[in-house]
Amino acid sequence: MVIVMAPDATPAHIEHLVDLVTAAGGEAYVTRGVSRTIIGLVGDVRQFETLDLRAMPGVSDVLRISAPYKLVSRENHDSRSVVNVRGVPIGGEHMTLIAGPCAVETPDQTLEAALMAKAAGAALLRGGAYKPRTSPYAFQGLGEAGLKILADVRDQTGLPIVTEVVDAGDVELVASYADMLQIGTRNMQNFALLQAAGDAGKPVLLKRGMSATIEEWLMAAEYIAQRGNLDIVLCERGIRTFEKATRNTLDIAAVPVAQNLSHLPVIVDPSHSGGKRDLVLPLSRAAIGVGADGVIVDVHPTPETALCDGPQALVGDDIQELADAVSSMSKLLGRTLATAPEPERAAQTVGV
Amino acid sequence: MVIVMAPDATPAHIEHLVDLVTAAGGEAYVTRGVSRTIIGLVGDVRQFETLDLRAMPGVSDVLRISAPYKLVSRENHDSRSVVNVRGVPIGGEHMTLIAGPCAVETPDQTLEAALMAKAAGAALLRGGAYKPRTSPYAFQGLGEAGLKILADVRDQTGLPIVTEVVDAGDVELVASYADMLQIGTRNMQNFALLQAAGDAGKPVLLKRGMSATIEEWLMAAEYIAQRGNLDIVLCERGIRTFEKATRNTLDIAAVPVAQNLSHLPVIVDPSHSGGKRDLVLPLSRAAIGVGADGVIVDVHPTPETALCDGPQALVGDDIQELADAVSSMSKLLGRTLATAPEPERAAQTVGV
Amino acid sequence: MVIVMAPDATPAHIEHLVDLVTAAGGEAYVTRGVSRTIIGLVGDVRQFETLDLRAMPGVSDVLRISAPYKLVSRENHDSRSVVNVRGVPIGGEHMTLIAGPCAVETPDQTLEAALMAKAAGAALLRGGAYKPRTSPYAFQGLGEAGLKILADVRDQTGLPIVTEVVDAGDVELVASYADMLQIGTRNMQNFALLQAAGDAGKPVLLKRGMSATIEEWLMAAEYIAQRGNLDIVLCERGIRTFEKATRNTLDIAAVPVAQNLSHLPVIVDPSHSGGKRDLVLPLSRAAIGVGADGVIVDVHPTPETALCDGPQALVGDDIQELADAVSSMSKLLGRTLATAPEPERAAQTVGV
Amino acid sequence: MVIVMAPDATPAHIEHLVDLVTAAGGEAYVTRGVSRTIIGLVGDVRQFETLDLRAMPGVSDVLRISAPYKLVSRENHDSRSVVNVRGVPIGGEHMTLIAGPCAVETPDQTLEAALMAKAAGAALLRGGAYKPRTSPYAFQGLGEAGLKILADVRDQTGLPIVTEVVDAGDVELVASYADMLQIGTRNMQNFALLQAAGDAGKPVLLKRGMSATIEEWLMAAEYIAQRGNLDIVLCERGIRTFEKATRNTLDIAAVPVAQNLSHLPVIVDPSHSGGKRDLVLPLSRAAIGVGADGVIVDVHPTPETALCDGPQALVGDDIQELADAVSSMSKLLGRTLATAPEPERAAQTVGV
Repeated sequence: MVIVMAPDATPAHIEHLVDLVTAAGGEAYVTRGVSRTIIGLVGDVRQFETLDLRAMPGVSDVLRISAPYKLVSRENHDSRSVVNVRGVPIGGEHMTLIAGPCAVETPDQTLEAALMAKAAGAALLRGGAYKPRTSPYAFQGLGEAGLKILADVRDQTGLPIVTEVVDAGDVELVASYADMLQIGTRNMQNFALLQAAGDAGKPVLLKRGMSATIEEWLMAAEYIAQRGNLDIVLCERGIRTFEKATRNTLDIAAVPVAQNLSHLPVIVDPSHSGGKRDLVLPLSRAAIGVGADGVIVDVHPTPETALCDGPQALVGDDIQELADAVSSMSKLLGRTLATAPEPERAAQTVGV
Repeated sequence: MVIVMAPDATPAHIEHLVDLVTAAGGEAYVTRGVSRTIIGLVGDVRQFETLDLRAMPGVSDVLRISAPYKLVSRENHDSRSVVNVRGVPIGGEHMTLIAGPCAVETPDQTLEAALMAKAAGAALLRGGAYKPRTSPYAFQGLGEAGLKILADVRDQTGLPIVTEVVDAGDVELVASYADMLQIGTRNMQNFALLQAAGDAGKPVLLKRGMSATIEEWLMAAEYIAQRGNLDIVLCERGIRTFEKATRNTLDIAAVPVAQNLSHLPVIVDPSHSGGKRDLVLPLSRAAIGVGADGVIVDVHPTPETALCDGPQALVGDDIQELADAVSSMSKLLGRTLATAPEPERAAQTVGV
Repeated sequence: MVIVMAPDATPAHIEHLVDLVTAAGGEAYVTRGVSRTIIGLVGDVRQFETLDLRAMPGVSDVLRISAPYKLVSRENHDSRSVVNVRGVPIGGEHMTLIAGPCAVETPDQTLEAALMAKAAGAALLRGGAYKPRTSPYAFQGLGEAGLKILADVRDQTGLPIVTEVVDAGDVELVASYADMLQIGTRNMQNFALLQAAGDAGKPVLLKRGMSATIEEWLMAAEYIAQRGNLDIVLCERGIRTFEKATRNTLDIAAVPVAQNLSHLPVIVDPSHSGGKRDLVLPLSRAAIGVGADGVIVDVHPTPETALCDGPQALVGDDIQELADAVSSMSKLLGRTLATAPEPERAAQTVGV
Repeated sequence: MVIVMAPDATPAHIEHLVDLVTAAGGEAYVTRGVSRTIIGLVGDVRQFETLDLRAMPGVSDVLRISAPYKLVSRENHDSRSVVNVRGVPIGGEHMTLIAGPCAVETPDQTLEAALMAKAAGAALLRGGAYKPRTSPYAFQGLGEAGLKILADVRDQTGLPIVTEVVDAGDVELVASYADMLQIGTRNMQNFALLQAAGDAGKPVLLKRGMSATIEEWLMAAEYIAQRGNLDIVLCERGIRTFEKATRNTLDIAAVPVAQNLSHLPVIVDPSHSGGKRDLVLPLSRAAIGVGADGVIVDVHPTPETALCDGPQALVGDDIQELADAVSSMSKLLGRTLATAPEPERAAQTVGV
């Protein structure tokens, strides 16, 4: 850290700061300039965090140098992590496609969507049983009944399931069904939920908060990691900006930036960022081009009747195009498409 | 609602929509223009929400007219609400000052801060026992021990207490001590928490999410109201923008806009928006000038040792200036300063 | 400035930087920490700007300490400036109200608006003859004919005139009529225009760019000042954010922040930030409360026929309320209302 | 357009509006709902723009349906445009790489950068002779001397030149040297400049304003088109958001959105959006993946001495990687790489 003193700081102010830092176990180096003095601090940044140096007399600014996150940082972890979701890898040299309906509505709709996902080359099935909705009058999800549908569809298709949890009190229940817990954009700083997810023993898909900086996103991941769970996948899903032509503004550069700062895999959600079906394919290609470790998309057999986010779900005709794009671009960029394990119970037996 | 058809929409598309709306119990009126057709829908907007009209063939856009919130809307509630917090009014012709430490640290620090708050003219004491922090390595609050300190300070000073709750699972406990539950900016769309707060039987102070639109803020209030709790106070605390000279950008216009859309009282937090001590007083005057129903500020006896947000806490010398500003401007603008009830146990007896 | 070296920087990298800085006439102080080395630079920041230190091998970050603007900075200019516009002061202990129509349309409309402005307590008349419009199909202003109308109305009412200039090529012409040149939000970084305005020998009203940081705003002022013109008034008029309930988000805290960084007066435009008539009065009170040196508002005798921004113009009934608010709040906050000089030709003679 | 009436609008209000619209040559269709009345307007939107319907008594909101731009809209122009820059195509099935130094500094530096650009597969040379800089103390470009250098390098390399113009007064001079005029992000709403560029008889590269909506960007293009110049290429270069990890936030989705709304080609500038060398290649791949018609990048032979934006310029080793990515991805996505014409004078003759 570096303390920048105000032009009118006195020698006593400076001495006081040096004492304070020394007492906290750090070292302080003073540089006196023409108009200002700066003090360089050597030691662990956490030592100094409780000092509130900014409030000290004579201090103009305090600049932090090291990253405030440790466990998810790439600084002490050179190789990129691979997260294993019931046998499906995310990260490393893999390209992992996750697909499924925004919300679980019925067994048939979920199974059909899962088969569409599989046809598109997906290795994991997404689907929400607990839906955080802006309006209390909107569909809020099926709850545990939805989790049971997902588990059943996993048995039939072999696709491990990724599903959202919205309250710390539900984590144990959701983790008993899910293969990966999703934490949504509105809950990125629901710290009780992050900690509960860290304790649950399942990999976590952490969506970026819609107005979170990349640093705050990594700090949220640090909350999970601090509980001993490093199986975290980051998901860029668009941020809130002044532009309203798209639902959110996909921050495509966040992918290489986060990969550079952290060893965790980073995937992209083109459906929620674009908010429109015809943007999903171009944004998926952009994601693969930029180097994302995976893509997560909405698919729905009949989006016109979907209870949630129908306008952005891919339909029948789009699937083959997505499959082709994912497969050809992954190959071009030297990535291997992750595949799903064999189903425990064949989907055909249910007549789909 | 108004459906805007695409230029190439067919008569069959239009007929299909009219049937759909009629089947949902609404009425549809078709206007055929030179290049486009529009369909006006008459009925309750909630009838149409499940239809996903935007995904229908031939539809270009769907425009909503009525507000999506009902219970907190001013449309059916002409007079402005007054919320009563253990005898202290917020709203109507009152001006209510809420003050206290960002975090409860010790009994002495809390009592001293409460006496500072009272000297500034505050009628309510704020103080956090549960602190949502960006870093898992930062001070997270004292929990129930902090609540006990607050209750004790209330007995000594007479100031009813406003304190934050961050997890649905903690609401019952927090509500057993607090006079008003605060929901923080990061939890504005933690819907489980909103619902639990709606069930708790205590007034709620709902801070605006740092990237929430005013409409989303009112929808969050609607979640609480839907549980039968209309004792809600809205708090503008700054939004996230590109400007980094202040911690957040205080959206001062949100106060009259929200007051115009909703009957709920609206107060302002100048401490968290400005993030710097010397901005608190000017922003407080701006808040009173714009017509806010109250102001909530951080005070701390020794901000240089504060475990949270010390740089923005008012200190001894600022208090009289704040008291003067609040008192003189309230008078000028025709508002009555709310006052605290008498303490059950005198603060003097504890030797402060 | 402070150079933060990368963890893997070599002694040769550091030596190279020290040499570079020394060769540029500065001094470099090296502090070696546990994981990183930092180098403090002493000297004028402009010496180092051409070095592109950030691109040097081994460099992780370069942090600037001193402000990059000099002439408009408060660092070397303790007292706050007062700008004199044909006898009307802005800044210091004054409160200056500027009012008038968004666009000059006809002599009658302009004169009526000027008399409304005067009735509201305005000391300066605003009015646009050159209008920058988003659409090429919208009214673009009367040009020189509009300037002549303004000059004529100045003769009749005594109100000095503030009018916008949008192209460097027009500055000489506009300055031959105007008492103060306005540079609008879209042109805040039209550097040729800033320089021409700096050369024109008239005070300049510099609106903040709708997405400019406060630092960029002050740098734009520095462009004008560098031409030897320090008669600059800054105008906060709202910034672009995600919130669409208002036309722009009035950054009310920018007023004290800019006053703290610069000696220039800072005023507020509540009309363009709010975009709605009923927000003008509350936002004007907020501006005076926060400590602005003035307020600039749109007035129009018949806003329903206005060719530009009618919805935000104050009308007859609002004027008295504005006059009362400006007068009573200025008094409360210890400011003297600036007044206009006597007219050279009485308005009554034209029968208004 | 659709007028939404306020709940308390009277029949007289509605009648007044119908008369107004009819008088303006349009048709009005009234739909009376339970709580509100809406009026659909049929006719050209420009007829109604001068009416200021929003300010009329009884009006709650006015919603626009048709796009406000005409000439650049795709509505009446089904095929996508190809812009020809001295023989080099942009748009259609082509992929066009534009490269060069941010600023022209010396003949040698410009020629070397041009040869790097050519090696990377570029068909056009970019380079600035007029530089809009935030600080008046920063390098402002060589002016006409820089244009002469560019013209000379064009002769030697065959690469047509794209160069920025920052003031309407300079357009004629710049157009006498340049093959394509660039209008920068800060000047996107410098309307005098847009009109002058529209009159200059050269293709225009229009960068998106850093806080411009896609609609405003297309309206700026409409200003150029209105002067009869439809040879316009749009360039997405990142927008200003709360995220500071990158210089700007590349709005990658703006490419397909703008291509959908307009027939003009859309290219991407990954250098200015990312602001860092190591982001240029991933963002270029994202741009090609999303379907951009071209990419414009900074290259510099010795970025550590660059007078402008050195940290984002590609250097020797990056060039081959960029050439490979552009070539292989273009092929995969069915685009043909545009190539430069033969030089009039061989570069070899000058000994490079």
